[in-house]
Amino acid sequence: MAIWLDHAADDFEARFAEFLTTKREVSEDVNATVKAIIDDVRARGDAALADYTRRFDGLDFNDKPMRVTEAELDEALASVDPQIVDALRLAAQRIESHHARQMPKDDIYEDAIGVGLGSRWTAIDAVGIYVPGGTASYPSSVLMNAVPAKVAGVERIVMVVPALKGAINPAVLAAAKIAGVTEIYRIGGAQAVAALAYGTRTIAPVYKITGPGNAYVAAAKRQVFGTVGIDMIAGPSEVLVIADGENDPDWIAADLLAQAEHDEGAQSILLTDDAAFGKAVEDAVERQLKTLSRNQTAAASWRDFGAVILVRDLKDGMPIANRIAAEHLELAMADPEPFIRGIRNAGAIFVGRHTPEVIGDYVGGSNHVLPTARSARFSSGLSVLDFVKRTSILRLGPEQLRQLAPAAITLARCEGLDAHARSVAIRTNEGN
Amino acid sequence: MAIWLDHAADDFEARFAEFLTTKREVSEDVNATVKAIIDDVRARGDAALADYTRRFDGLDFNDKPMRVTEAELDEALASVDPQIVDALRLAAQRIESHHARQMPKDDIYEDAIGVGLGSRWTAIDAVGIYVPGGTASYPSSVLMNAVPAKVAGVERIVMVVPALKGAINPAVLAAAKIAGVTEIYRIGGAQAVAALAYGTRTIAPVYKITGPGNAYVAAAKRQVFGTVGIDMIAGPSEVLVIADGENDPDWIAADLLAQAEHDEGAQSILLTDDAAFGKAVEDAVERQLKTLSRNQTAAASWRDFGAVILVRDLKDGMPIANRIAAEHLELAMADPEPFIRGIRNAGAIFVGRHTPEVIGDYVGGSNHVLPTARSARFSSGLSVLDFVKRTSILRLGPEQLRQLAPAAITLARCEGLDAHARSVAIRTNEGN
Repeated sequence: MAIWLDHAADDFEARFAEFLTTKREVSEDVNATVKAIIDDVRARGDAALADYTRRFDGLDFNDKPMRVTEAELDEALASVDPQIVDALRLAAQRIESHHARQMPKDDIYEDAIGVGLGSRWTAIDAVGIYVPGGTASYPSSVLMNAVPAKVAGVERIVMVVPALKGAINPAVLAAAKIAGVTEIYRIGGAQAVAALAYGTRTIAPVYKITGPGNAYVAAAKRQVFGTVGIDMIAGPSEVLVIADGENDPDWIAADLLAQAEHDEGAQSILLTDDAAFGKAVEDAVERQLKTLSRNQTAAASWRDFGAVILVRDLKDGMPIANRIAAEHLELAMADPEPFIRGIRNAGAIFVGRHTPEVIGDYVGGSNHVLPTARSARFSSGLSVLDFVKRTSILRLGPEQLRQLAPAAITLARCEGLDAHARSVAIRTNEGN
Repeated sequence: MAIWLDHAADDFEARFAEFLTTKREVSEDVNATVKAIIDDVRARGDAALADYTRRFDGLDFNDKPMRVTEAELDEALASVDPQIVDALRLAAQRIESHHARQMPKDDIYEDAIGVGLGSRWTAIDAVGIYVPGGTASYPSSVLMNAVPAKVAGVERIVMVVPALKGAINPAVLAAAKIAGVTEIYRIGGAQAVAALAYGTRTIAPVYKITGPGNAYVAAAKRQVFGTVGIDMIAGPSEVLVIADGENDPDWIAADLLAQAEHDEGAQSILLTDDAAFGKAVEDAVERQLKTLSRNQTAAASWRDFGAVILVRDLKDGMPIANRIAAEHLELAMADPEPFIRGIRNAGAIFVGRHTPEVIGDYVGGSNHVLPTARSARFSSGLSVLDFVKRTSILRLGPEQLRQLAPAAITLARCEGLDAHARSVAIRTNEGN
């Protein structure tokens, strides 16, 4: 049973405000442990990696070396069901074509007084991609991180993945091969993040680390931030489905459960103007839960964080949706256009009755790494922009310098920065 | 005396590698203090702000209220030397025209099989700008943070600035007025960051916080990251000047000192192919230091972190420059073109003998908030992109869903996510 929030009720604002700030994850404070691991990897390098990997993953590098070989990759690709390989290839190709359009263009120009200005984009030289082990080891996430890096032109794409007792999901390796990952190491946890950030004898350092992980990985990424770049720290996933009463309750229930099965902290929200439809969806959720392999996770998520928001008019859902700022927003309604225009805060919008969010998880072409926990108010999904950086270019001749010098000197003096003033004045003989 | 690194020497690589990793700032661990302040502001709101402001800034809100009034702004603008106001207006206008070109364009299209895909950009609704107090309270930084936000379309631009005994630099207020800041509060430190992130009765929360600050401000930004977005954590500033022997040593010395006067941790590096020229620049630095108001700071920076790198051929400087990844890079040479093309890692490039970096600090039009401490390897200067976010849009009809469904279902099942598979299959009758 999800909670119901009725927009027409007197206590809606209070209850909704509380709903918005409900924490959905247990924040474990692992900072001290993580700091010790990072310091150890910085001090002892490969030896530290060997120790932690033996202890946490039950893998001895004498049995299987840290680096995955090209032959192992080919073997993995050959061993995976061809139907899966084809699906990965289709996904990779669609992700690639969509992301190629995101590549920013250089902009080099002269302004009215002849000052040359420019923005030039270049790929980051080397990036690291963290892939979790165990059941959260998703081949689709490998594609979503590595393909945009490839499109950006990143030369070294270094993947790390914990190999419990040496084993890595072959579909993950197949995805890495298809996506063009250039190096793979059998390491995980904070020690893998430290190795990527600082390098060891075996692993050259990278300049940015992306990809999801557990509390230790998240804490390690936060700690190495500054030494390297990181992507967002992902929280539990969420979906908001805005649906009129004309939908099949079973379709919408399936979409809510697709989100709920990820994680007990995941959140599925239905917003509708039809109370009877809302009730029908709730019944369908209960029914479908029974035949779901991840029944326990999905049931806990729906029970603890699921919600049905009832409005009198679907249009009233727009400001509510902007406040929720959902990672995933489905618009299952007759006329979604006003919503597409009016929604400002959402990681991704899935339009119409035939666009379940799951298509975006795999083969839509857009990225499934999206801002969670209301961070769509200020951040964006993963894209090619995360793998490039911009250098600005400024070029003045003597004439332009002469024109701009007085204002620059005035501001430098106003800020008490005499050497700044002199560096301009000395070139224009305005006294130094 | 700066250190000299000779590219032809046997120990160059070892010495250069050590030089690259030299830490230039004392990292104070203020995390516990900052956490207590943030928790207190979350719990007690305005009352906590009043207490900290009385204690740290010597200001009682009964004497001067927290919020700066429109009348005070007008008064500040009228009180500032008109030459400074004109210079601020010129700077703001040039920053605005340059940044307007950075506004990303929406991209909405249909692919070959009729899937609608899109990237839509919207401004962040509300951002906070931190402005330091005291001598580091620079009006130019107000422009560099607020103007791009305005260009992006941010509606609420909230500035916080500590007002020691109630006083704020009138030029800072004038810059805020010119840039279009919408709210200003007399608060600073970790308490101001907490108020922006979580809100109080007086201050509505913002979604992203930018701007430089001391160790407490930096730690607070790191701690609230996730609840709100933040810009980079700025470290001490640096410049790399690549200069042939045909430059006036005094010009180049002035540029090196303009960097050194910022901060004892600032770093000024000259790279040249002419040892005699290098020596002449060093002499000029010593001479100019004598007449500099910030003599002590600049001398300490030059002594502790200044460097002259000597190469046989200027071209050898290119890979060295890419490893240094300087915040500011000056190319003071006859033919800078090959360098402009070959430099991948730099915050900003200043081209030719008449483009001192200082022009970029004030009136060039490009942003002076740039990646420090080698982070130009993975990040970019502040731009309009920091104040917008992207929503991706996906739209399938029944026919597109039919085509993509099999691959999506295959991947969902491969990942053990049955509800994902069902959410697609239920719409295409491929079994659920």
